[in-house]
Amino acid sequence: MATETELRAMRRAIDVARSVPRTLPNPRVGCVLLAPDGAEIAVGVHRGAGTPHAEADALARAGDQARGATAVVTLEPCNHTGRTEPCASALIAAGVARVIHAQTDPNPKAAGGAAALQAAGINVESGVLADEATALNVEWTFSITHGRPFVTWKYAATLDGLSAAPDGSSKWITSAEARRDVQAFRAESDAIMAGTGAVLADDPRLTVRDEDDLPLPYEQQPLRVVVGETQIPQYYRVFDRVAPTLLIQSRDPDTVLAKLTENEIHHVWLEGGPRLAGGFWNAGLIDRVIGYIAPSMLGSGRAALEGEATTLADLRPIDVQDLRTVGPDIRIIGTPGRCAREEMP
Amino acid sequence: MATETELRAMRRAIDVARSVPRTLPNPRVGCVLLAPDGAEIAVGVHRGAGTPHAEADALARAGDQARGATAVVTLEPCNHTGRTEPCASALIAAGVARVIHAQTDPNPKAAGGAAALQAAGINVESGVLADEATALNVEWTFSITHGRPFVTWKYAATLDGLSAAPDGSSKWITSAEARRDVQAFRAESDAIMAGTGAVLADDPRLTVRDEDDLPLPYEQQPLRVVVGETQIPQYYRVFDRVAPTLLIQSRDPDTVLAKLTENEIHHVWLEGGPRLAGGFWNAGLIDRVIGYIAPSMLGSGRAALEGEATTLADLRPIDVQDLRTVGPDIRIIGTPGRCAREEMP
Ligand SMILES: NC(=O)c1ccc[n+]([C@@H]2O[C@H](COP(=O)([O-])OP(=O)(O)OC[C@H]3O[C@@H](n4cnc5c(N)ncnc54)[C@H](OP(=O)(O)O)[C@@H]3O)[C@@H](O)[C@H]2O)c1
Ligand SMILES: NC(=O)c1ccc[n+]([C@@H]2O[C@H](COP(=O)([O-])OP(=O)(O)OC[C@H]3O[C@@H](n4cnc5c(N)ncnc54)[C@H](OP(=O)(O)O)[C@@H]3O)[C@@H](O)[C@H]2O)c1
Repeated sequence: MATETELRAMRRAIDVARSVPRTLPNPRVGCVLLAPDGAEIAVGVHRGAGTPHAEADALARAGDQARGATAVVTLEPCNHTGRTEPCASALIAAGVARVIHAQTDPNPKAAGGAAALQAAGINVESGVLADEATALNVEWTFSITHGRPFVTWKYAATLDGLSAAPDGSSKWITSAEARRDVQAFRAESDAIMAGTGAVLADDPRLTVRDEDDLPLPYEQQPLRVVVGETQIPQYYRVFDRVAPTLLIQSRDPDTVLAKLTENEIHHVWLEGGPRLAGGFWNAGLIDRVIGYIAPSMLGSGRAALEGEATTLADLRPIDVQDLRTVGPDIRIIGTPGRCAREEMP
Repeated sequence: MATETELRAMRRAIDVARSVPRTLPNPRVGCVLLAPDGAEIAVGVHRGAGTPHAEADALARAGDQARGATAVVTLEPCNHTGRTEPCASALIAAGVARVIHAQTDPNPKAAGGAAALQAAGINVESGVLADEATALNVEWTFSITHGRPFVTWKYAATLDGLSAAPDGSSKWITSAEARRDVQAFRAESDAIMAGTGAVLADDPRLTVRDEDDLPLPYEQQPLRVVVGETQIPQYYRVFDRVAPTLLIQSRDPDTVLAKLTENEIHHVWLEGGPRLAGGFWNAGLIDRVIGYIAPSMLGSGRAALEGEATTLADLRPIDVQDLRTVGPDIRIIGTPGRCAREEMP
C-alpha cells in the first residue's frame, strides 16, 4: 500500500507531467524520487521526443542520493531501448529500492518494466492514482491500445447547422473568442487535418498561433495533413515554411489513419470540411466532437457534416462531456455513440 | 408620485394578473382597490374574453367601499365599449378618487381612459412599474402596436441542424422533456401554425395536452392553423374535434398574418416545417426563435429551416435571451436581428 507521503508525491508527479503542454509523440510523464524518510530528493519530467524520460531526468538530478530511494512515476517505467536507454535498467542501475507507478504502460513495445524491476529485486507497486495519470494521456493511450490515432473533429456552424453560405463564404461564422479557443486545442494535437475541398476553398494556414497571430516555432507545430486526390497548388498557405505538411492522396479513412500512425501521430485534429468529416463520421471513426455553434442562422448553405443517413435509426447520439459558452458562441464537447441501427442485433 | 403603499399594491396587481395563464385575445390585467388609509379593499383580475375586466371585477367585490378609493391597475383603464362597458366609466360611476396605472393602453380603439378619468375630476397617475406590467403582455403589446401577430418560431433539430432524416422520419429527435416544455409554450399562444408539408408528413395534433397526454378542454385550446394550398384529407388529426382549426390557403406570410389578425390572434406559435418557417424567415417576420437542439447528429436529412441565403452577409444574428438544457437537449431562446445585408446603407 502506498503511504500518504507517496500519494502526495504521485499527485506532484502528475502535476509536473501536466505542466508540459506537448511531449508528442510521447506521453506526458512525471517522476518524484523520495528518500527513505519520505523527503523529496528530485523531480523529473519528460519534455518530448529526444529528451530524457522523466525517470532519467529525476535520476540525473538526484545523483548518488537515488540509492535506496523510492521512485514515484505516473507511467510504468519503460523496458525498451528507443532514443534513450530503458528506464527500468536505469532505475536498477541507480539502486532505487522501491518503484510506485500509476498507469500501466499500454504500449506492448515498451511494457514489461514492472516485471524487469521486480526480477531485479525491487519492490514495485502499480495502479496508484491510475485514473488521474491516465487522464494526462487520453489520446495517446487510445492510440496505443487501438493501433490508430484518436480523432477529434472540430466544426463551427450556425444554429441551423451550416458552415458556409451557398457561395462558399464562411469567414467568420463564429467569434474571435471561439477561434482563439481552437488555437489552444490545435496546440495539443499531433496533427491538424483538412480535406482538399476546405484547403482550396479557404486557404487555411492549419498552424498554431499566439494571441498576436504569430505562429509558434516550427518544431512546436503539429503536422499539417491534407487529404484527397486533388493537387493543391504550391502557393497555398499549407505549403508555407511555418510547419511540416503531409499530403495523403486517398479518400479512405482507414488508409488515412494508417498513414498517420506510420508518422507517429497519436491525436489528429480534424477541421473539416464537411465531406472529409462525413467520411470519418460514416465509418464511426470520430472519437470526440468539438462543436462551436454561433447564435445565428443562414437558412441555406453548406452543412457542417455531409454524411450518409437515410432514416432516423442513423441518428448518432453524442454523449456530452462539456457544454458552455465561449464568447457569444456555444461550445459542445462530446463522444459520438452508436446509432440505433448499429445497436440492432 | 405613487406612495410606497401604492407601489406595493401595483406589484400585487401584477402578480395577480400573471396568475391567469390565458386571457387571449385580451391582455392580462390586475387591479387592486385601496382605501384612503391604504388598506386593501378588493383585488380584481381579468380572466379572458367575455369575462369582466380587472377593474370591473374589483369594483364588484368592493361594492360601496369603492367610493373615494384609489384604483391601482396594471393597464390604463379602457375607454371603449366592447363586450363590457368602458372601465373608465365604471370607475367614474363608482366614485373612485384616484387611479394609478402602469402600462399605457397601446390599443388606439381602447385608449383615452386616462383622459376620460381626468375630465371627470379623478386624480390619475400613469407609468408606475410600466416595464414590469408591459412584460405581462409582450406579444399582445407587439401585436397591437404593429398591427400583426407576434410570431414565435419553434424548431427541434440535431447539432447539425436537421429536423428529419432523408426518408422524412423525425420522431423523435428531441427528448420527452423538450416536448413537455413545448406544451407549456403552446398553452400560452393564441394559435399553433404549421405548413401543409409538416401536417401531411407527421399528422401532428397541434393541441395543448397535459402530463398524461390528455388535451385541455376545447375552449382552452389555441386555434390550429394550417398554411398552404394543398388539401389536407379530413381524416388528418388537425381536423379532430379537440380544437378549432383554420385553413389559410396562401403562401404569402403577409396574407397569413392578415388572416390571423382578422381572427384576433396576437401571438402565433409557428411549429414549421422548414419551408413555411423559411418563408417567414426570409420576410424577416420571425420575432422570437425557440430552438431545441438534441445532442446528436444525422449527417444528412431535412434542414430545420429552408431559407434563401446566398452569401455570408445573409447571416442573421440571434440576440440570445435564454440558453439552458431541458433534459438532455439544449434550449435557446432569442430574437433574430438584422443581417449585414440589411444593415448596409
Ligand atoms: N466551419 C467549419 O468548421 C469549416 C471547416 C472546413 C471547411 N468548411 C467549409 O467547407 C467547404 C468545403 O467543403 P468540402 O466538403 O469540399 O471540404 P473537404 O471535406 O475538406 O474536402 C472534400 C474533399 O476531401 C477529400 N476527401 C478525403 N477523404 C474523403 C472522404 N472520405 N469522402 C469524401 N471526400 C474525401 C476529397 O478530395 P479529392 O476530391 O481531392 O479526392 C473531397 O473532394 C468550404 O466552403 C469551407 O469554407 C467549413
Ligand atoms: N423538427 C421540427 O421542428 C419539425 C417541425 C415540423 C416539420 N418537420 C419536418 O419537416 C418536414 C416537412 O417539411 P415541409 O417543408 O414540407 O413542411 P412545411 O413547411 O410545413 O410545408 C411546406 C408547405 O407549406 C406551404 N407554405 C406556406 N407558406 C409557404 C411559404 N412562404 N413558402 C413555402 N411554402 C409555404 C406550402 O404548401 P402548399 O404546397 O400546400 O401550398 C408548402 O408546400 C417533415 O419531414 C417534418 O417531419 C420538423
